[in-house]
Amino acid sequence: MSKALEELQQYLEKMNRFNHVTTLLYWDMRTCAPKQGYEQIGDALAYFSTEHFQMSVSEELKNILETLSTPQEYEALDDKWKFVVKRMKRYFDKNERIPKEVFEKSVKIQTAAESAWEEAKEASDYSIFAPHLEKLIEVTKEIAGYTDPGRELYDALLDPFEEGMNSSVIDRVFDELKKDLIPLVDKILASEQPDDSKFQGKFDVDAQVKVQKMLLDYIGFSWDKGAVGTTTHPFTLNFSSKDVRVTNHYYEDAPISAMFSAIHEGGHAIFEQNVNPDYDGTVAGSCDYMCIHESQSRFYENVLGRNKNFWLPIYDKLGELLPQFKEISLEEFYREINHVRNSYIRTEADEVTYAFHVILRYEIEKAIFREGVTVEELPGLWNAKMEEYLHITPRNDAEGILQDMHWSGGSFGYFPSYLLGSIYDGMLLDTVEAELGNVDEILAQGRILEITKWLNEKIHRFGSTRTPLETLSAVCGKEVTAEPLIRYFTKKYTEIYNL
Amino acid sequence: MSKALEELQQYLEKMNRFNHVTTLLYWDMRTCAPKQGYEQIGDALAYFSTEHFQMSVSEELKNILETLSTPQEYEALDDKWKFVVKRMKRYFDKNERIPKEVFEKSVKIQTAAESAWEEAKEASDYSIFAPHLEKLIEVTKEIAGYTDPGRELYDALLDPFEEGMNSSVIDRVFDELKKDLIPLVDKILASEQPDDSKFQGKFDVDAQVKVQKMLLDYIGFSWDKGAVGTTTHPFTLNFSSKDVRVTNHYYEDAPISAMFSAIHEGGHAIFEQNVNPDYDGTVAGSCDYMCIHESQSRFYENVLGRNKNFWLPIYDKLGELLPQFKEISLEEFYREINHVRNSYIRTEADEVTYAFHVILRYEIEKAIFREGVTVEELPGLWNAKMEEYLHITPRNDAEGILQDMHWSGGSFGYFPSYLLGSIYDGMLLDTVEAELGNVDEILAQGRILEITKWLNEKIHRFGSTRTPLETLSAVCGKEVTAEPLIRYFTKKYTEIYNL
Repeated sequence: MSKALEELQQYLEKMNRFNHVTTLLYWDMRTCAPKQGYEQIGDALAYFSTEHFQMSVSEELKNILETLSTPQEYEALDDKWKFVVKRMKRYFDKNERIPKEVFEKSVKIQTAAESAWEEAKEASDYSIFAPHLEKLIEVTKEIAGYTDPGRELYDALLDPFEEGMNSSVIDRVFDELKKDLIPLVDKILASEQPDDSKFQGKFDVDAQVKVQKMLLDYIGFSWDKGAVGTTTHPFTLNFSSKDVRVTNHYYEDAPISAMFSAIHEGGHAIFEQNVNPDYDGTVAGSCDYMCIHESQSRFYENVLGRNKNFWLPIYDKLGELLPQFKEISLEEFYREINHVRNSYIRTEADEVTYAFHVILRYEIEKAIFREGVTVEELPGLWNAKMEEYLHITPRNDAEGILQDMHWSGGSFGYFPSYLLGSIYDGMLLDTVEAELGNVDEILAQGRILEITKWLNEKIHRFGSTRTPLETLSAVCGKEVTAEPLIRYFTKKYTEIYNL
Repeated sequence: MSKALEELQQYLEKMNRFNHVTTLLYWDMRTCAPKQGYEQIGDALAYFSTEHFQMSVSEELKNILETLSTPQEYEALDDKWKFVVKRMKRYFDKNERIPKEVFEKSVKIQTAAESAWEEAKEASDYSIFAPHLEKLIEVTKEIAGYTDPGRELYDALLDPFEEGMNSSVIDRVFDELKKDLIPLVDKILASEQPDDSKFQGKFDVDAQVKVQKMLLDYIGFSWDKGAVGTTTHPFTLNFSSKDVRVTNHYYEDAPISAMFSAIHEGGHAIFEQNVNPDYDGTVAGSCDYMCIHESQSRFYENVLGRNKNFWLPIYDKLGELLPQFKEISLEEFYREINHVRNSYIRTEADEVTYAFHVILRYEIEKAIFREGVTVEELPGLWNAKMEEYLHITPRNDAEGILQDMHWSGGSFGYFPSYLLGSIYDGMLLDTVEAELGNVDEILAQGRILEITKWLNEKIHRFGSTRTPLETLSAVCGKEVTAEPLIRYFTKKYTEIYNL
């Protein structure tokens, strides 16, 4: 092994320890720590994350990466280390171009914006957040000018989440979707809706935790490499492929919520648990591409989890754990978990109308960064699009433009990932059926772990080493298209709603 | 503020961050992390605890402490900082006298001894552990020769746990206890024993968790400053007075176990939560004296928790949470939680025979360090003392000499703390009754928080700033004596067992 590679490995080992405790402090704050402990945790978090950031932009790292990027050194590396050096060098060069004062300014703007958003959402008053949003947009443009000079702005913003994607592809597939989904949803909404009265009432929270365990077992979550916690908003977090944590929330009056959060976060976790462990502790591990990550969580949650056959082998067990479900037939349950509603909140939307929530945000982001729409115009734009796609108008800012925290954290370009994930899922479903056989049958026979194994093999083990487009091309062998997803929606909901 | 004091404060801030993450890594490993994550956590733990240790023995710290110890600087400090500087200087000087190679040797011996003990306990074979124990004893002697030159060896070992205590005081009070408790226990064991058949069966674990919450609320645990976790062995751990964590275990077939562990650890936690927050992050905070700490946990667990009146205001609630308790009268419950048995395992012993388990270990430690008894002779000595005090002989090493992990970690001199804690509790009970009134009445009227408040005021808020003897003298106004504990035991068990 070359001296420089050895140095890089040692350097990464140290960085990983700082990253480990930073991640752990965050995990602890969300899942366990008492309120009065937050300040001390926040102080430690600031210290260790700053130390970690300093390591990521140090002269020492720069020299190591430059040495390893010389042709002689680079060619001697194996594929994994070639990827790591190339990727780290690219990040380093990008970040290095941001002037220190601009970076610091952006951190300050973001910190202020996050508090302002919380306050604004609480008060349901967009005017509290608007001036911060304006500054965030400005500094985002400024930074992109340094990191991606000469590149179209919004495409540059999409890149960290959907590497290799660009808005012309997204425009094309989102337009395909809109064309067919608007009339489909209109037909669904005009149809008779299922009776959800059996899902009212109080469902024991401890039993819901047991249901989560049963579901995670069922889909292939590894407890040797995973743990669970409780938080307001469910999320997945990983230290390495060997330690992946998911969280969930449990509502006494809404038992279905925790079930599908469990399956969704379980999908993210199964991905991370099955990345090649040799990639741990490097940028080759833990998948960075949000669209691919969401494709996995949403494949489990929607394509598998909202299929009636998914529940066939375990529906009796569900009734044993939550006795009220003994009084609900599988058919009634299936109708309810696929109940399409025109609602205000993205995170509570069904799988079909979810698409509109994302498209709306994507179109607004484009309007901001391409058409120069001002922050004052955004609530009007939001409401007009809600009316157009879902025929409802938010009654206040909290259930409209203020509902998501993404923008307050400076994450522009993130939203499309969610819907791209579903679009990829349509394509994946076709491929799974071509290679493994009819998914309804596989599920009905309780062979879901065969699908997990297939996803491990085809997608998960590669971690970050394949970009989204490379993954799709390798697995599905074709260009991105919304056609399979539209076909899947149309068939499924035509049957459910007797359209 | 002097420049040196400012330097010390900044230095402590940094040390505390490293201490925070070291503590958190330990907490995470015990309460949450999956098995395959241990290796990475262990690596981070080794790194951050070594960094923390290096800071505690650095030249920089030495210089700061020396400056602050000069009369001019020292006299200008307030009481808190006087205590901190004096205490830190004493620790520093002690540790500095240990040659680096001796310290490193001791770490290696200890690490090997811990694994050997685990293996030995698993195999119930003392011969696996004996050679390691011998080395531990030797290196313990060697280190004490550096840290406490000229001091009697076993007294030096007691000091870190029971500062200011020495074996002549302990001998005196333990002998008082033995004189009266041996005949008392013999009489109890010869009496009719309660029927424990109603405590057999399966008790819902989720409900036990709710009982724990109810009990912690009841005794005054603050959830704003505290959290709970689940582990095999219950323990309490604190980051500061604002973040104190307790753990518990829940056995489906032994519901009483988790209740009393909750009260016991709750006692430790209430102590830490009520230390003066101004002491946080210094050696003045978090109480270092195990005997005083155990006096608080055992006061809640035994003096309060095993009093019938403690349960009067909450016994109905207990029945609501664990319905099987509706079929058990408070009287039957009271008999069972004070069921005296001659058993092998210290941690499972009732409050009376517990004394013998500790006295036995104390006498063995004295035999090792004063009389030069060899490791080969220890099992025989152990069994002879079990026969003498409890009239039983361990059937194997695992339930005899190998049962506790303390010695494998090099903790000699720790055991007496447990019993000293109970002895102090007898004295405290007298003082509480003199100042607040009859404890039976206070408990029966649901006014237990008045006792918690009294303990906060008299003991907890001082943290480490008062030694055990200073605390007793300030609170009880007298020398250490076992008489009140003996009186309490005699009265209580004469009534219960109709002696």
